[in-house]
Amino acid sequence: MPNFSATVSVTLKTTVNDPEGLTIASALHSLEFEDVQTVRVGKIFTITLQSSTKKSAEQQVDEMCKRLLANPVIETYSFKVVKN
Amino acid sequence: MPNFSATVSVTLKTTVNDPEGLTIASALHSLEFEDVQTVRVGKIFTITLQSSTKKSAEQQVDEMCKRLLANPVIETYSFKVVKN
Repeated sequence: MPNFSATVSVTLKTTVNDPEGLTIASALHSLEFEDVQTVRVGKIFTITLQSSTKKSAEQQVDEMCKRLLANPVIETYSFKVVKN
Repeated sequence: MPNFSATVSVTLKTTVNDPEGLTIASALHSLEFEDVQTVRVGKIFTITLQSSTKKSAEQQVDEMCKRLLANPVIETYSFKVVKN
């Protein structure tokens, strides 16, 4: 089966408070990056998987996001699958 | 000054062990995603900042990566700046 590589971004919903992002913004201000307005932090997963077609790889990755990688209550996700 | 939005990805170098990724790969196998081969985990930062030009925004973000966001010993970074 061909190999695919998926890049999944999981970020907090905009309505959810992000203390890590606030801390980083404050640290950037201390380092004299005063033009920084907001910082939001998320996770990125790079997954390699085998699949018969690109469509089935995308379906699998979507399922992984729903079941493990993202918490749908507070997070949103997006991903891109490319053939290796 | 115009607003820019930067998306910064910080990932572990491929030679660096990623125990979080290994744990997630193992969890995905347990959830019957048996075609998953490897998982690598990184961070994504979404930064909004003011800057006079796109070029100066990119220079600022590059500087932020070097000084705070990434650890150059074990991590690599990439970013994309777009005008809001």
